Amino acid sequence: MKLMRVGAVGAERPVAVGEDEQAWDLTPLTADIDGAFLADGGIAKVRAALEAGDLPAARLDGQRVGTPVARPSAVICIGMNYAAHAAESGAAPPEQPVVFLKTPNTVAGPDDVAYIPKGSTKTDWEVELGVVIGSRVSYLDSPQDAGRHIAGYLTANDLSERAFQIEVSGGQWSKGKCAPGFSPLGPWLVPADEIDPSNLRLRSWVNGEPRQDSTTADLIFDVETIVHHLSQYMALEPGDVIMTGTPEGVALSGRFPYLRAGDVVEIEIEGLGRQRQVFEQA
Amino acid sequence: MKLMRVGAVGAERPVAVGEDEQAWDLTPLTADIDGAFLADGGIAKVRAALEAGDLPAARLDGQRVGTPVARPSAVICIGMNYAAHAAESGAAPPEQPVVFLKTPNTVAGPDDVAYIPKGSTKTDWEVELGVVIGSRVSYLDSPQDAGRHIAGYLTANDLSERAFQIEVSGGQWSKGKCAPGFSPLGPWLVPADEIDPSNLRLRSWVNGEPRQDSTTADLIFDVETIVHHLSQYMALEPGDVIMTGTPEGVALSGRFPYLRAGDVVEIEIEGLGRQRQVFEQA
Repeated sequence: MKLMRVGAVGAERPVAVGEDEQAWDLTPLTADIDGAFLADGGIAKVRAALEAGDLPAARLDGQRVGTPVARPSAVICIGMNYAAHAAESGAAPPEQPVVFLKTPNTVAGPDDVAYIPKGSTKTDWEVELGVVIGSRVSYLDSPQDAGRHIAGYLTANDLSERAFQIEVSGGQWSKGKCAPGFSPLGPWLVPADEIDPSNLRLRSWVNGEPRQDSTTADLIFDVETIVHHLSQYMALEPGDVIMTGTPEGVALSGRFPYLRAGDVVEIEIEGLGRQRQVFEQA
Repeated sequence: MKLMRVGAVGAERPVAVGEDEQAWDLTPLTADIDGAFLADGGIAKVRAALEAGDLPAARLDGQRVGTPVARPSAVICIGMNYAAHAAESGAAPPEQPVVFLKTPNTVAGPDDVAYIPKGSTKTDWEVELGVVIGSRVSYLDSPQDAGRHIAGYLTANDLSERAFQIEVSGGQWSKGKCAPGFSPLGPWLVPADEIDPSNLRLRSWVNGEPRQDSTTADLIFDVETIVHHLSQYMALEPGDVIMTGTPEGVALSGRFPYLRAGDVVEIEIEGLGRQRQVFEQA
């Protein structure tokens, strides 16, 4: 099953897509796919309603695809979580997860127009496995306790402006991570019990040319380790999104040019779907 | 005029307090003091209703004081924004504002119990001038354009765990800034046109002993410069809170011990009110 939100920005409607690719309207169950819905057993309710045949059919053709979850209370990122990407960024692999935040208003639909920020010379892509939190998490005893707090997974693009992030930031990365639209999410939220996040191929392309091509098996800190670790330092809320880090193959490496208006970025994670952003100048 | 929210956590009611310290119930005007209310000319509506005598009286005695604005979409912080604090932290004054984020779920009432995080050995206080955004801000042309986007000012405590922030963070400070309750705000929101933020005394005490005692006149980057600068890197939303940095006199300096359970922290900004937190172990 895939959960989606389709429609104009701010007016998305919740939809479930079954194995047969048939889409079902979730509005009889919930006004939105958000933290409150996920915390209230929303995924189980969708399954029960699909089983009972209670939902009207929905059409996806020609509709904009929104983020699969409504704007979260926090977008939390793990930096340098693939050894080869740490190396291409000029850093050693971290001994503990490196944590930074994006403002929640950066989230955007997977195929929305993306923007090169004003003054940008170094806009970059980052395909990442995204984790969506399903219930409040604080001070977990062990990584083994993390799974029951994870609602599902999605494809995420942690768009980044490297000059803003590194050169004019005093070392705090968020300045280069928060431009409008800098966190495309989706197209789908796949429930945690329907996908194994431990070995998913994740790839990116610019103008059709391959850039990143790795697997989540290469994560230095895996999903459960990350959730447990974060829970020692902050409370995670239902609907929050964790971006787990990006593999090698970004422009920061020096091997590829940075993005310019007119460029097309595509990213894809096995089982979690594909995004496509056409870039314009802000 | 002061705007407040009083009542139990999650059930706060909006109140206005006039020059004569009489409190007025704002629920006939709005369910809450939040970004939507501020963006919709809320402050002018409160003034008109007070003028017209349309509001019922409210009582404050014995009620918990909440954050003066509902949970923001972002809490944005400026680091090292007082030269003497940069020096006591072992850093040079920054050439551009240093920006980091706290998760919005850290906000707490000004007098709520505060918590020493589990595993903490270095919990620290930071009195800061807080700026509340009144309308969406993106790509301002100049600092002179910032004022019309500022709803008002409040007292903020940017509680920090220095080992989490500096020693186990890989250099990204947010890990030490996001523990539950780590952003006490209030007691009041003072409208921007009723206070000049350029020379306000700001002080802190631990167990009644003075710690910080400075003035916002010593800010390296002033409020309008900060809002203009941030607008080049992110969109600010109505209701968002900016913490503008802390002056010298924190435990990180080595001159004072870090906080322990049972300690009492008080902070105050001239014209913006006083907070008092009793610390417990999480």
